[in-house]
Amino acid sequence: MFRFDLQHECDGARRGVFHTPRGDVQTPGFMPVGTVGTVKGLTIDQVAATGADMILGNTYHLRLRPGHETVARLGGLHKMCGWDGPILTDSGGFQVFSLGALNRVTEHAATFRSHLDGAKIELTPEHSIEIQQALGSDVAMVLDHVIALPASATEVEDALARSIRWAKRCRDVADRPEQALFAIVQGGLDPVLRRQCATELASMPFEGYAVGGLSVGETPEEMYATAAITTEYLPPEKPRYLMGVGTPRDLLENIARGIDLFDCVMPTRNGRNALAFTDEGPIKLRNAVHREDTRPVMEDCVCLACRHSRGYLRHLFNANEMLGPILLSHHNLMYYGRLMREARAAIEAGQFSEFATMKLRGWGFEPMSVSANGVH
Amino acid sequence: MFRFDLQHECDGARRGVFHTPRGDVQTPGFMPVGTVGTVKGLTIDQVAATGADMILGNTYHLRLRPGHETVARLGGLHKMCGWDGPILTDSGGFQVFSLGALNRVTEHAATFRSHLDGAKIELTPEHSIEIQQALGSDVAMVLDHVIALPASATEVEDALARSIRWAKRCRDVADRPEQALFAIVQGGLDPVLRRQCATELASMPFEGYAVGGLSVGETPEEMYATAAITTEYLPPEKPRYLMGVGTPRDLLENIARGIDLFDCVMPTRNGRNALAFTDEGPIKLRNAVHREDTRPVMEDCVCLACRHSRGYLRHLFNANEMLGPILLSHHNLMYYGRLMREARAAIEAGQFSEFATMKLRGWGFEPMSVSANGVH
Repeated sequence: MFRFDLQHECDGARRGVFHTPRGDVQTPGFMPVGTVGTVKGLTIDQVAATGADMILGNTYHLRLRPGHETVARLGGLHKMCGWDGPILTDSGGFQVFSLGALNRVTEHAATFRSHLDGAKIELTPEHSIEIQQALGSDVAMVLDHVIALPASATEVEDALARSIRWAKRCRDVADRPEQALFAIVQGGLDPVLRRQCATELASMPFEGYAVGGLSVGETPEEMYATAAITTEYLPPEKPRYLMGVGTPRDLLENIARGIDLFDCVMPTRNGRNALAFTDEGPIKLRNAVHREDTRPVMEDCVCLACRHSRGYLRHLFNANEMLGPILLSHHNLMYYGRLMREARAAIEAGQFSEFATMKLRGWGFEPMSVSANGVH
Repeated sequence: MFRFDLQHECDGARRGVFHTPRGDVQTPGFMPVGTVGTVKGLTIDQVAATGADMILGNTYHLRLRPGHETVARLGGLHKMCGWDGPILTDSGGFQVFSLGALNRVTEHAATFRSHLDGAKIELTPEHSIEIQQALGSDVAMVLDHVIALPASATEVEDALARSIRWAKRCRDVADRPEQALFAIVQGGLDPVLRRQCATELASMPFEGYAVGGLSVGETPEEMYATAAITTEYLPPEKPRYLMGVGTPRDLLENIARGIDLFDCVMPTRNGRNALAFTDEGPIKLRNAVHREDTRPVMEDCVCLACRHSRGYLRHLFNANEMLGPILLSHHNLMYYGRLMREARAAIEAGQFSEFATMKLRGWGFEPMSVSANGVH
């Protein structure tokens, strides 16, 4: 029921289609984040208008509120939020990690206290899959053991070994043909461990592979190098998903390293904070310089924000009006969606490197050359 | 350039069309409130989808933020917020009143301190018109002297006499043919003063008349009686606008007393607070009873909220997600818009009384009989 068609390769970048029972996902593709069953500030139609094929839901958050059983009784995540296309749910591993002192990890489970009411919750690999089955997502993620970096070699190796064992436990119980399961490669910034983890997981039957444990404080150089070494050891016929990434620059640099899918709260979170992404870099709409500026954020953008002047957007943020966050969230997701469409077209045209170089320079960056493949 | 066509009368209710250079306003009609140039929480397309013909902007708020001159430099209020249809602006009189201790009224002007930065601002009738001209609204309101009720007879009479003198000063400077000017009838709850004020203003050349000074704490009975006595002395060939009103019940009871136009923050403010209007009365979506309710708020509603379950809406409010206020604001404005459409159809069909009785009973009210005209 799931199939990945790799259609073009160019300068390390891949153009593909991930077929799911609920529709096709064009790759490279960006997934808007709908943490608790809503992409913050937007109606589901507005999300669809940004060109997103697949959206993301957070298992940890939905487990706590409204509860996965409630979601199931409301008809599942798709029915509840009104999204007919594919949905990917994470496993809760990253949120358990980000709770820091509130969590404790044993071989059996990650145990943590709810950030809402302090209730003690035990998240085993099996329970993570059970939750994701109740939510009814199209792509489930294995539960992984995420650790903070920097960490000792022993800690990284322990977490990696546990993540592989947990991935196997997830695979054993994830038995629904209509729900794909993606494994998550860990291994910190160590190329040897990344290679080992990718190789081991690649030998197991997953419908896709994620690069996890990044976007946790490492430098862009470290992130890109780790993505490159990981994708090198992943099966080319399966989609690769870089979790929680990133800036527009991160997207292009990682596409050049063989990544197919991304998710990040950056477009919506920055939109709520008055920051708009453009081809000339980000614009801070709260700044007084925009007060009487009649130009839109971007001239050729078809989003809801760019029907208005920068002056109006600045006024909305200045007056704490909800419409400011709404409009800029839409703009930023539209910007990310267009960037992915343009990247796909550039790969098809055999000009990804030229395209990426042009975009990166517009944002004020030089492309980073990679040895194995990609942008030079 | 402005003309009111009174097309039907039935049980005291009027069905008309107010023609403006920017389009027709069907009456009875409800105007969503866009205080600072945005109907809170909604894109301008979503506002239009509720069936609104005319929206409202607040002179006081726009004077302070972003400033009327900034609005003018951004192309005027229509261009700024993207609304092509007619806009009515109030005069600032009510806001000056609601600032309470921060204001002082002399014959020359209302002087007040900004609620934002304490700056001292003098609002004369002439300045109110100047601001409304800079905003570029299609209908301007005269500056009136609003007082708190109950008040002594002398206070009410003084404010009334000043409001009439200020209305004349506004008329003298409001010289743009593309901007209508509506007078505001004051007089508290005293039928003699209301009659006197309506008669005096009716002898002056205004394009429409408002009933002001209501929705300030009086009972529904007092409001309806005052609306009835006021409309009796207003010219039938001009539209009548009841300012700041009200509940769905208030709308029908006042339509039965000859009112054509309404504005109120109630649909959006209540929507933000999880209250949805329905034909069976309001529903509080935060209540636990809705937790796993798969029904929409209303079965036959085409708003954005009613595509979802009550359980989902409850979850959104419970999780403090922006989408909850967005969806219920849309539902409530859609409900008000539909109520006005149904009222217009009922008047055309000669069945307004039957229609109003049915609606009012659905909400748990018996219609109030009026002596002069209307519901029995």
